[in-house]
Amino acid sequence: MSAATVQTIKFLKQPTLPEWVELAIDNIETILLDHSHCERKAAGVALNLMFRYPSNEKMVRMLTAIAREELEHFELVNQHLEKRGIPLAPLNAPPYAAGLKAQIRRNEPERFLDFLLVYGLIEARSHERLGLLGEHCPDAELAKFYRSLMASEARHYGAYWILATTYFERDIVTARLEELANVESELLSTLYPHPRIHS
Amino acid sequence: MSAATVQTIKFLKQPTLPEWVELAIDNIETILLDHSHCERKAAGVALNLMFRYPSNEKMVRMLTAIAREELEHFELVNQHLEKRGIPLAPLNAPPYAAGLKAQIRRNEPERFLDFLLVYGLIEARSHERLGLLGEHCPDAELAKFYRSLMASEARHYGAYWILATTYFERDIVTARLEELANVESELLSTLYPHPRIHS
Repeated sequence: MSAATVQTIKFLKQPTLPEWVELAIDNIETILLDHSHCERKAAGVALNLMFRYPSNEKMVRMLTAIAREELEHFELVNQHLEKRGIPLAPLNAPPYAAGLKAQIRRNEPERFLDFLLVYGLIEARSHERLGLLGEHCPDAELAKFYRSLMASEARHYGAYWILATTYFERDIVTARLEELANVESELLSTLYPHPRIHS
Repeated sequence: MSAATVQTIKFLKQPTLPEWVELAIDNIETILLDHSHCERKAAGVALNLMFRYPSNEKMVRMLTAIAREELEHFELVNQHLEKRGIPLAPLNAPPYAAGLKAQIRRNEPERFLDFLLVYGLIEARSHERLGLLGEHCPDAELAKFYRSLMASEARHYGAYWILATTYFERDIVTARLEELANVESELLSTLYPHPRIHS
């Protein structure tokens, strides 16, 4: 396991179940399509945070860079889909992101902290899972593609962590991350039956 | 007047009032801040269309490119703000975009056509106005910056036109554009008293 994956798992409470890897590899075309949706959603999430907190200069600077990278990845995933003749299509989302978003507290400044940590956790999990696909995917070209995304995906969850500790005291961030990371791992403790990046 | 501006005006029913240029030049720092919001919103609009119509391959490809460019411009505008010591801050939006969005019909496929034409008109007007700032702004560095954005801004409203005529018959597009362009010019016939890109 690479150093980057170990670092992600420090952020996450539990590693991905081996069953997920099997489900994903057996349904790699659906995973690729879901990955496309994930990249577009990740760009949308970054834009949405800038829309909600337009005066936070450091956050705006970091999230603009993230949104640009997510869109670049979105374009790359879509090129892989096109090459394989997989049409773009909607996919039902697994309950994962909704379950995490339900944890976001309603009042400020707690809401802002929770947004940063929830999105950071989703990025950390994506990073872990793309890393697993990079290790286990039998299609060499796709495996290489997943590995090529690892460095910037690691920067993304790192950026959310940096932002959380920029705007909030470190012990408050750590305590809340602990709670949310437990929920995150709990949400993935039962394998969602449809193949998704966040099954 | 450049060829690009003449082309924009063919898309628009009425050119911008000279009073707008005066208001904008007298309040160039507010205009620069509003421009930042416009670029972020334009990226958001492109993402939102991809979210609503995820299966339209050509649209997704063209709007991904647009969203990436809008975020690049957002970053550039924010660098100009930072250089001038203007903090990022929220700004009340003028009634322009809401007035146009109120024209979007509720049922498909009319809704999709109206989205494309409304966003195309907003891009065309932005292009015209950034061109005016490029011509009239007394700050040489900013004037040069505005001129540097012209080519890609022209591509953006061109892209919405291409998409409209990809998914709809040309005579249907032309007739609806005529109606919406009249509303667009009407919305700008009275100068909104606060300096904005779409005052």
